[in-house]
Amino acid sequence: MTVSIPQSFVKLDPAEGWGLNNLPYGVFSTGSDDKTRPGVAVGDKILDLDALSRSSHFKDSPVPAEVFQGGNLDAFVAREPEDWAKLRAYLQKILGVDSPLKDASDLNKLLVDRASAKMHLPIRIGDYTDFYASYEHAFNCGCLIRGPDNAMQPNWKHLPVAYHGRASSVVISGTPFHRPVGQILEKPGDKQPIFAPCRRLDYELETGFIYGGSASKLGERLSPAEARKHIFGLVLLNDWSARDIQTWEYVPLGPFLSKNFCTTISPWIVQPVALEPFRAPQYDHDPELLPYLQDPEGYNYAVPLNIDIKPEGGEYDRVSVSSMQHTYYTFAQMIAHHSCTGCGIRPSDLMGSGTLSAPNDEGLGSLLERSRMGKQPFKLGKREDMTWLRDGDSVRISALVKNGDAAVNFGECEGTVLPPLKQFGQ
Amino acid sequence: MTVSIPQSFVKLDPAEGWGLNNLPYGVFSTGSDDKTRPGVAVGDKILDLDALSRSSHFKDSPVPAEVFQGGNLDAFVAREPEDWAKLRAYLQKILGVDSPLKDASDLNKLLVDRASAKMHLPIRIGDYTDFYASYEHAFNCGCLIRGPDNAMQPNWKHLPVAYHGRASSVVISGTPFHRPVGQILEKPGDKQPIFAPCRRLDYELETGFIYGGSASKLGERLSPAEARKHIFGLVLLNDWSARDIQTWEYVPLGPFLSKNFCTTISPWIVQPVALEPFRAPQYDHDPELLPYLQDPEGYNYAVPLNIDIKPEGGEYDRVSVSSMQHTYYTFAQMIAHHSCTGCGIRPSDLMGSGTLSAPNDEGLGSLLERSRMGKQPFKLGKREDMTWLRDGDSVRISALVKNGDAAVNFGECEGTVLPPLKQFGQ
Repeated sequence: MTVSIPQSFVKLDPAEGWGLNNLPYGVFSTGSDDKTRPGVAVGDKILDLDALSRSSHFKDSPVPAEVFQGGNLDAFVAREPEDWAKLRAYLQKILGVDSPLKDASDLNKLLVDRASAKMHLPIRIGDYTDFYASYEHAFNCGCLIRGPDNAMQPNWKHLPVAYHGRASSVVISGTPFHRPVGQILEKPGDKQPIFAPCRRLDYELETGFIYGGSASKLGERLSPAEARKHIFGLVLLNDWSARDIQTWEYVPLGPFLSKNFCTTISPWIVQPVALEPFRAPQYDHDPELLPYLQDPEGYNYAVPLNIDIKPEGGEYDRVSVSSMQHTYYTFAQMIAHHSCTGCGIRPSDLMGSGTLSAPNDEGLGSLLERSRMGKQPFKLGKREDMTWLRDGDSVRISALVKNGDAAVNFGECEGTVLPPLKQFGQ
Repeated sequence: MTVSIPQSFVKLDPAEGWGLNNLPYGVFSTGSDDKTRPGVAVGDKILDLDALSRSSHFKDSPVPAEVFQGGNLDAFVAREPEDWAKLRAYLQKILGVDSPLKDASDLNKLLVDRASAKMHLPIRIGDYTDFYASYEHAFNCGCLIRGPDNAMQPNWKHLPVAYHGRASSVVISGTPFHRPVGQILEKPGDKQPIFAPCRRLDYELETGFIYGGSASKLGERLSPAEARKHIFGLVLLNDWSARDIQTWEYVPLGPFLSKNFCTTISPWIVQPVALEPFRAPQYDHDPELLPYLQDPEGYNYAVPLNIDIKPEGGEYDRVSVSSMQHTYYTFAQMIAHHSCTGCGIRPSDLMGSGTLSAPNDEGLGSLLERSRMGKQPFKLGKREDMTWLRDGDSVRISALVKNGDAAVNFGECEGTVLPPLKQFGQ
């Protein structure tokens, strides 16, 4: 597939994935201006959309200036998808090689160095839902817990299993967090739990996707085709998980404290239109899905996802390479299912795909799978006996996908495990 | 216990529970002014706090005027608990028998008839969490599913089990909703689900409580004593539940669509201080709770909770009378547990107690229990074979508690089941 990429007056290397074919949105502040404001990434710069909206250059914009003046992207995410497309075309023009902006006297106020910017949560997340939609991951977990003959639960191939997450726990890449302290069993079968720092701390490699446009009304449902139009954009997501806390708490109402101490997202929201050159076929669904979930036009994205781990003071080593395509249900199907009983979905709601594991040992999306529930330590860099995360470990998810010149970079989703806080009760 | 109740110039019957000892907060609009604004209930009136804050009468207020000018109660809920106490004392004074307000020329603009007001969600709910904290309810459900010998899960007496709910699904009393459509099994053991309107629609009688004051920080935890100070107020809550959808979907990640189509709360937020005369002892905890959950000063509230059902065009008949006191864990313990792994909790977060069932057949908090999972139809008014909710049924939770003159009314939490919407996929 040959893709024509518009050229920019901003100096950039198209192979790095920050060209006019990407144009991901984020929210940033700088050392000289601590106001949080929306921007769009281009090359190693950020175009300050708040400043642009207050300048004369914005006069031909297809959206009102105040959309970018609220301190985050909520107002833009809530616009109709047509406006997202129009603004993208406008940005490609205003950042294009022939744009008068390149000679503007205020250009240095509008373009900020990306490396010097501090990134913030791009939206005020209303509700956060996490799915469990990778067949490979569900099968691996099922094998570890119940053995291969009973690995898959009866409902799994009929609906995208999910749970409600905690919006307050979502943080931006680069935010460290303390190892959670909670109730765990010292050994399986114990009747008395202890209150202690988590001993089985894990990451989960996921794609996050953000719902935009008009809210779905209570009592109505979206088809997958309708739902697809509402996907404003995608981020990398790490659903940090405390496996021992989860094991003890999750029957019968699902994971709770084992998941809500921290969830990290990458700061740049990549729009689906930027990923068009990277479509991958959706999975075959056998048994056939119920009609409300069928999505004949559906597809996934073949975006490689890297996980690297760095011990305190050390270097990053690669643990896995999976792909965004390893989801049995499309993102559109997940939204359609979410709305099917009439649940209202609002702009700036966040959803996660669930751990995305590839069908091979090199592409496992969690340490649970990689270390066979801690029973098969593996070598990682200088560490001979890697199983679960240790204090000081940093985990980084990154994604850069290329198809000729059509490279798209997601940036990084990174977090560091701090020691548990000593407080009462321990 | 004898309680001294301050008297008001607003004509009211103390036995009705809307005296100066209650003073619950809500958000309303009127036919003549559709602006949503905070108010406080007194007698059959509402004192318009937005209008009051813009008047000269507010000059001695302990909180800034803008706290009540944002269209809801979020800004007030986010103030420190000391300010809640100060405003209560101020309101008791300004509404007292000797208050100059009683002769003010603008009094009719400040006092609105409660009966003519339209109530709205009082806060913008950030995150919503639902617990499962009534021993009686958990035991009843366990008996129906697993039999009495295995009724209680091993973790239940060690931690307050909970799941994250969906903030977008919370509606104000009086909001009807469509019967949810979802995946169900026609009979147990079926391998192929169908997509059909819920056949086992239920209510759950709960108390909701709203976190206020400063947010807890990620990574820190609250003790029960600290958590108690953060309870801004209590509401009645109906966690409508689709039992057949729940049965099929909830393994392994908990209830999802079976709960997120509608959750109803009553409009008036009753503050804990108003419930002081109605304290009840907390439950004995055997086995002993882990230190972080121990709450030697903890208590429950002995507030009777009524459930009535009305068929379309019919009258309300009483189904059950339970009490707010039937919770094994105190509300403070629930918040403390919620924060123990470091989960951030923010002002205007809502939590539910879980279904509150009394230890007798007259006080069961759900139809699941009352009809023995649909297997024991019962007589309700003219309906001889009541099991699950039918289209057109309204369910009303109400609470009026009395101790001499110290009556406190919670008002009503009501909702009506509409027929399912016909849309694609059915």
